[in-house]
Amino acid sequence: MTLDEKALQLHYEMQGKIEVVSRKPVCTREDLSLLYTPGVAEPCRVIAKDESESYRLTRRSNLVAVITDGTAVLGLGDIGPVAGMPVMEGKCVLFKEFGGVDAFPICVDSKDVDTIVQTIHLISKSFGGINLEDISAPRCFEIERRLKEICDIPVFHDDQHGTAIVVAAAMLNAMKVTGKKMGQMKIVINGAGAAGIAIGKLLVQMGFGNIILCDINGMICEGDAGLNAEQEKVSHITNLHHEKGTLADALRDADAFVGVSRPNMVTKEMVASMNEGIVFAMANPVPEIMPEDAKDAGAAVVGTGRSDYPNQINNVLVFPGIFKGALAVHAREITENMKIRAAYAIASLIPDAQLSAENIIPSALDKTVADVVAKAVADVAREDGVAGI
Amino acid sequence: MTLDEKALQLHYEMQGKIEVVSRKPVCTREDLSLLYTPGVAEPCRVIAKDESESYRLTRRSNLVAVITDGTAVLGLGDIGPVAGMPVMEGKCVLFKEFGGVDAFPICVDSKDVDTIVQTIHLISKSFGGINLEDISAPRCFEIERRLKEICDIPVFHDDQHGTAIVVAAAMLNAMKVTGKKMGQMKIVINGAGAAGIAIGKLLVQMGFGNIILCDINGMICEGDAGLNAEQEKVSHITNLHHEKGTLADALRDADAFVGVSRPNMVTKEMVASMNEGIVFAMANPVPEIMPEDAKDAGAAVVGTGRSDYPNQINNVLVFPGIFKGALAVHAREITENMKIRAAYAIASLIPDAQLSAENIIPSALDKTVADVVAKAVADVAREDGVAGI
Repeated sequence: MTLDEKALQLHYEMQGKIEVVSRKPVCTREDLSLLYTPGVAEPCRVIAKDESESYRLTRRSNLVAVITDGTAVLGLGDIGPVAGMPVMEGKCVLFKEFGGVDAFPICVDSKDVDTIVQTIHLISKSFGGINLEDISAPRCFEIERRLKEICDIPVFHDDQHGTAIVVAAAMLNAMKVTGKKMGQMKIVINGAGAAGIAIGKLLVQMGFGNIILCDINGMICEGDAGLNAEQEKVSHITNLHHEKGTLADALRDADAFVGVSRPNMVTKEMVASMNEGIVFAMANPVPEIMPEDAKDAGAAVVGTGRSDYPNQINNVLVFPGIFKGALAVHAREITENMKIRAAYAIASLIPDAQLSAENIIPSALDKTVADVVAKAVADVAREDGVAGI
Repeated sequence: MTLDEKALQLHYEMQGKIEVVSRKPVCTREDLSLLYTPGVAEPCRVIAKDESESYRLTRRSNLVAVITDGTAVLGLGDIGPVAGMPVMEGKCVLFKEFGGVDAFPICVDSKDVDTIVQTIHLISKSFGGINLEDISAPRCFEIERRLKEICDIPVFHDDQHGTAIVVAAAMLNAMKVTGKKMGQMKIVINGAGAAGIAIGKLLVQMGFGNIILCDINGMICEGDAGLNAEQEKVSHITNLHHEKGTLADALRDADAFVGVSRPNMVTKEMVASMNEGIVFAMANPVPEIMPEDAKDAGAAVVGTGRSDYPNQINNVLVFPGIFKGALAVHAREITENMKIRAAYAIASLIPDAQLSAENIIPSALDKTVADVVAKAVADVAREDGVAGI
């Protein structure tokens, strides 16, 4: 059986990967009258007087909605809200298994930005946080921005920020391994959608040198025609020397490549033209260049999204801890500082003595990561004044 | 400690009564690649081709949304969507504990009918059914009606239909115990909101004789001014002799009283004026008349909503089984026949030999009820042609 067949069979057997359970069995009359009527009236009254008590009296304190419109599901594209649900359920499984965070999958059956924003906002008080997922660019930017403005709970588009944070963490350690200097690095990102733009912005904010974003037409440069609003914004802080040209041109003498694009976009020649390149080829399941080829061509550090090669750069290292930390202090939002410190926290989990070209990032299966990320995120939320408690 | 204090303390200790768990632990790389990427792409593809496969490949097949706008929470009234959530969570606990049905609580932060309908419709494909809860009348009627029209999953306002079904079940057995004849019974319902109207409609459909609805102004009669649309509709099929007068007038020679109103609305004199009356005094926690007083005044059968008296008429006997049955056959809606047969199924659980004035309805804690109701509901769904499988 192929992996696809196995996965399908498992999904048929499981009939859903998550389940909603009671935290207490109901066996006696007393159970019924304490958990339901008439006893339940009292917590209702308390919340009616002070809404913040909902964090102490309902599951909201540990609960994230994982929401999609099904327009950019994995590499499958716009397959519709219902077809995206296996991914959302999978994400909820990881939230619980890795972060102890309850997460519930919801699909919104609309592609209209206004409608999606309104729908999510109107149900947002059922949750402690909103994880947006697999919404196509550039709609995802506006949806997230507007939800952040109107919701009083953290809103986090994982395809953007989760990916950016885990790439930043890997980049910090790859930089150490190669002895490169943060401010002097030239980093080429291929793919100017949700992930690529977020990675670019985060790396700039962290102080990485010259970031160049490429899309299908090559390097993105300030003033280019045809950029969407978010690409236009990021063009002002990237590609500092206003270079034009192809991905191959961009990679010449580059210190790092970050691929969030498509299979086989990068040749051995391109890698060979880099400056002892760090190569994060994260297209899934087939990367922009296979790790053995990148190595052959002289790459100093290679990471992918795959579990069968060293240095798996997977945002499961990020989102469970981000929300765990944010929920712990009732953070109203996920700030830039919280993201940056999460990246440093993940990077710090590989002690210097164990750092190597084959070991720059914790295993995606390491269930201790979320707590470390959560602590960092909660600390910064307090420092940034966005913590509710 | 009072019950209220105990319930509040328990809610603080539990920090939420439900929890979202993974149905499979994630420990190995294979777990990760089968439950999440890359394996999860395959079930997504299958659903993209045939949306009905979502019932086999996601939790949708066993999942109900419990949705409120917080406008009519218990007897507390319009306390807001967030304050209603302890009740919604409690309901979800009962769905799982009594029916094995996964249920998830959502509050919609709007009081506008159009907005609520649109919001629920847009997220409805995440679920296999919608249980509406604690939405004020008469808005609840329109919200349910419109959702039933546009959603392809069952929509069920439990405050209406769950209550109606359990009252009907109790009435069937009380009728047997008292030897009354269904078509000749005069039944007075006090309270012309969501529950009262639904009870009236269902009892009429089942063939109970003359049903008279009363509100604060007394008997509702065809042609009365000031009726809302739903009261107007029900006025055509109830109060067949166009009587006018007070609740006390209505109760004279009545065979049954059904109270879904307020404490202490019924006096011993009123009960004494009935025809060996069946008295279901369901105001909670203080009934329209206390059972001992009703008995004193000559009531033949007495039921309440309370667990500390015989004959507790509680819709926990209904909703877990209704949805379990509907989900089992992917019913597109809950039909009138499904409700009626659910009532007969519940009534049938007390064998004739065990029927008595003190034993007309199964215990609210009886976890075998849901399966019996589910079977009846699934059978009728097939007969009515609303089953998807």
